[in-house]
Amino acid sequence: MEPHVLVLGGGFGGLWATRALASAPVRITLVDRTNHHLFQPLLYQVAMAGLSAPDIAAPLRHILRRQRNVGVRMDEALAIDVATRRVTFAQGTLEYDYLIVATGSRHAYFGHDEWASHAPGLKTLDDAVMIRRRMLEAFERAERESDPDVQSEWLDFVIIGGGPTGVELAGTLAEIARHTLPREFRRCDPRKANIHLVEAGPRVLPSMPESLSANARSQLERLGVRVHTGRAVTRIDDRGVLLGDQPIVARTVLWAAGVAASPLGAQLGAERDRAGRVKVEADLSVPGHPEVFVIGDLASVVQDGQPVPGVAPAAKQMGAHAARAIRNRIAGRASAPFRYRDYGNLATIGRMAAVVDLRGLRFSGAFAWLFWLVAHIFFLIGFRNRMVVMSEWIWSYFTYQRDARIIIGRERDARD
Amino acid sequence: MEPHVLVLGGGFGGLWATRALASAPVRITLVDRTNHHLFQPLLYQVAMAGLSAPDIAAPLRHILRRQRNVGVRMDEALAIDVATRRVTFAQGTLEYDYLIVATGSRHAYFGHDEWASHAPGLKTLDDAVMIRRRMLEAFERAERESDPDVQSEWLDFVIIGGGPTGVELAGTLAEIARHTLPREFRRCDPRKANIHLVEAGPRVLPSMPESLSANARSQLERLGVRVHTGRAVTRIDDRGVLLGDQPIVARTVLWAAGVAASPLGAQLGAERDRAGRVKVEADLSVPGHPEVFVIGDLASVVQDGQPVPGVAPAAKQMGAHAARAIRNRIAGRASAPFRYRDYGNLATIGRMAAVVDLRGLRFSGAFAWLFWLVAHIFFLIGFRNRMVVMSEWIWSYFTYQRDARIIIGRERDARD
Repeated sequence: MEPHVLVLGGGFGGLWATRALASAPVRITLVDRTNHHLFQPLLYQVAMAGLSAPDIAAPLRHILRRQRNVGVRMDEALAIDVATRRVTFAQGTLEYDYLIVATGSRHAYFGHDEWASHAPGLKTLDDAVMIRRRMLEAFERAERESDPDVQSEWLDFVIIGGGPTGVELAGTLAEIARHTLPREFRRCDPRKANIHLVEAGPRVLPSMPESLSANARSQLERLGVRVHTGRAVTRIDDRGVLLGDQPIVARTVLWAAGVAASPLGAQLGAERDRAGRVKVEADLSVPGHPEVFVIGDLASVVQDGQPVPGVAPAAKQMGAHAARAIRNRIAGRASAPFRYRDYGNLATIGRMAAVVDLRGLRFSGAFAWLFWLVAHIFFLIGFRNRMVVMSEWIWSYFTYQRDARIIIGRERDARD
Repeated sequence: MEPHVLVLGGGFGGLWATRALASAPVRITLVDRTNHHLFQPLLYQVAMAGLSAPDIAAPLRHILRRQRNVGVRMDEALAIDVATRRVTFAQGTLEYDYLIVATGSRHAYFGHDEWASHAPGLKTLDDAVMIRRRMLEAFERAERESDPDVQSEWLDFVIIGGGPTGVELAGTLAEIARHTLPREFRRCDPRKANIHLVEAGPRVLPSMPESLSANARSQLERLGVRVHTGRAVTRIDDRGVLLGDQPIVARTVLWAAGVAASPLGAQLGAERDRAGRVKVEADLSVPGHPEVFVIGDLASVVQDGQPVPGVAPAAKQMGAHAARAIRNRIAGRASAPFRYRDYGNLATIGRMAAVVDLRGLRFSGAFAWLFWLVAHIFFLIGFRNRMVVMSEWIWSYFTYQRDARIIIGRERDARD
C-alpha cells in the first residue's frame, strides 16, 4: 500500500502541503479541528463586521474534492507518539508513515490567563464573531446608558498589540465610530469614542522598516486612534487597563499582542524556542525523525540570522517544501534545505490607508491600500469568495456601511 | 411633550408599526432583544448553509436611521405593568403613553421541555447557526465513523413538523445529501442519508388546500424525503424518535412542530387562547386598555370564523393598523376594525419545487418555485441584502454549492 501522509492542520501550511502532494504516490489524511480553511489575513474584517464568517472560509473537503488521494477528517489531535508513529484524536487513532504538523499558534497572555475573559484575542472565526458581538454591544450599551461617565466608558476601546492585527482593528474601529454609526444613534455620539492602541515596543508594525512604522502611526492618528508605544500593560479588568501606572478606562479591551505555539509541538521530543516553536532541521523535519515535518507558525526556522516570520506566505512555502521532501524521500532523492523567499510585507490601516514594503520598494497611503486590496482578493481561496468579498468592499467603500453588523451568540460576558 | 409610543419587538409587526408612525406627532422607542430585524421566511436557508446570517438580517437602527422620531434600544423586556404604564427591562424602566407588544412566539415542545436539547427548533439566527452546525457535524461524524451501523445513524435525520419550515428543511436537506456533498466524502456516502419528515396531522402544509398538500408530498418524495403523516412523536432522545411505537433511529432530530406565544402576553391581564396568544379587540387593543396593542404572532384574531395565521403579511398589516389606531386616537378620530387581507400562501420545497395558492389560483413545481423566489427577494429588507441573496441563489442554482457550510460555535451537544 502507498505510504500514508498524515497532515495535522488545514491552515495555509497544511493545505498547501496537501495540495503539493496531489500527484505523489501517497495516501493523505488531512485533519483539522474545524471543517474549514480560514483566510486568516481577513479575519479582522469579520471581527469588525465588514464581512460575514462564510465569506472568508471554505470547507476543506470542498477545496480538496477533486484531489482523490486525500481524505479530510474533522477531529482534534490530542497526542502524537513519534516512536510508534501514531496520533491519537478525540475520536480514534491514526498511524502514519509521514507526519506534517501544521497546527499553528493560538493567542497567549504571557502568563496572565486571567486576562483572557476581559481581552479576547483573534485567531478563529469563533473569536471573530465574539469580538464583533462585544464591539457592537458596547455601542448598544452606551446608547441605553443614562450616566454620562459610564456611557463614555462604553465608547472607549483599548487594543493591545501594535502588530498588523492590532493596527487593522484600531483603524477599522475608528472608522466605524466616525463614519458608519453616527447617524444611527440618538442618545450617545459614537464619534466621541476613544480608540487606544497600545504597543509595549517602541513602534507599531515592528516587522516593518522604521519609516513605514512612523508613517502607519501618523495614518492611525489621522483616523483618530490614540497610539501609546513603549509602555506595557500591567493589568486588565472589566473597567480597562493599567499602562504602567496610568489607567485607561474602557469597557472593551481586545488582545492582539502575543501568540504561543500549538501545544502539540511539545510532543515531538524536539528542542523548542521561547514561544514554544519547534526547532527543525534545514529540510523542516524534526531532529532524529526525518519522517516528521513541522511547518508554518509552529516551526522555528532561522535564515540568515533572522527568524522566518509567522505569515501566510512562509507557511505556504514550508508546506510546499515538506511535500517536496516527502516526494524526494520516496524517490530516494536528497532534498535541498528550505529557503524562505520574502516577497514583501504589507499592512492595512483603514480606508485608503496602508503601508507596503516590497523588498525595499516602500509606499503608503491610497496606492498602498489599493495594492493591499488587490493582493488580498487575489489570494482568497475560491472564485466565489473572491467575488463576494470584492462586492462587499466596493459596496462598503461607497456607502461606509458594514453589512455584518449582526449580534449573534450569547456568552457569559466578563462585562456583565 | 409628544406622547411616547413604546414598541416591543423588531419583527415584522413591530417594525411595520414603527415605520407607519414616521410622520405621527409621537416619540417612539423600539426595543428588541437583538440588534437586528430578521427576515424570518429565509431563516431555514441559514440553517441549511445556503445563506450566511448577515444576509437575512439588518440592524434595526440602520433600517430606521432616517426616521427621526424613533430611538432603538437593544434590551429585554421582563415585565409590563399596564396599571402604571411602565415596562421593566433587563436594564432600566420605560414609561409609555401607547404600548405595542409584538414579541411574537418561540418554538415549544408541548410540555416536553426535555426534548429541547435533542431536537433544536428554528426561530432566531442563533438557532439557525446551531442547526447548521449539527447538520454539518452529522456528515463529518459519519465520515470518521468506522462502524457501519453507527455511520448510518449519523446519516439519518428526522424533522418533526410538516408545516412550511419542516417541509423547507426536509427538502433542502435531501438536496444537500444528494447533490451538494457526495463527491466530497470518501468513507461515507451522503446519498445514503435518510430524511424523515414527521407530521402528526393527516397531511403536510395543513394551512394549504388539500390538493397542494398532496402535491407537496409527492414533490418531497421525489427528492427522496420519507414523509410520515398521522402519527405523533412520543419520545425523542439522542438516538432518534419514537413514532407511536415505531422507532426511527437517527442522530440528528430537528423541531419544526409547535410554537408558543411570548410569555409577555400573560402580563397584560387579558384572556389568552390555548397557544398563549392574547385575545384582542377589533382594533387590536387589549380589552380595558385601549392604549395597549398586541400584534403579530402574539395576537389571537378571529376573522370570519378563521384564526388569522401567524405569517409575515398578517404581522405587517397588524403593525400598520395599530399605528393608524394610535394616530386616530391622538386626532380624536374613531378607528375601523382590523381586517386581514390574505393575498395568498406559498411554500417552497426544494430546487424547482414549491406550491402556491393565490386566493384560489393554485400552481406548483418549477413555476411556483420561481414565483416564491421572486416574492422573497422582493420582500427582503434593503437593496443590499436583496442583491447578495439573489447572487447567492443564482450561484447555488448552477453549482449546487452552498457557501455557508462553515461550522462555528461550540455547544454542549446532547449528542456528545
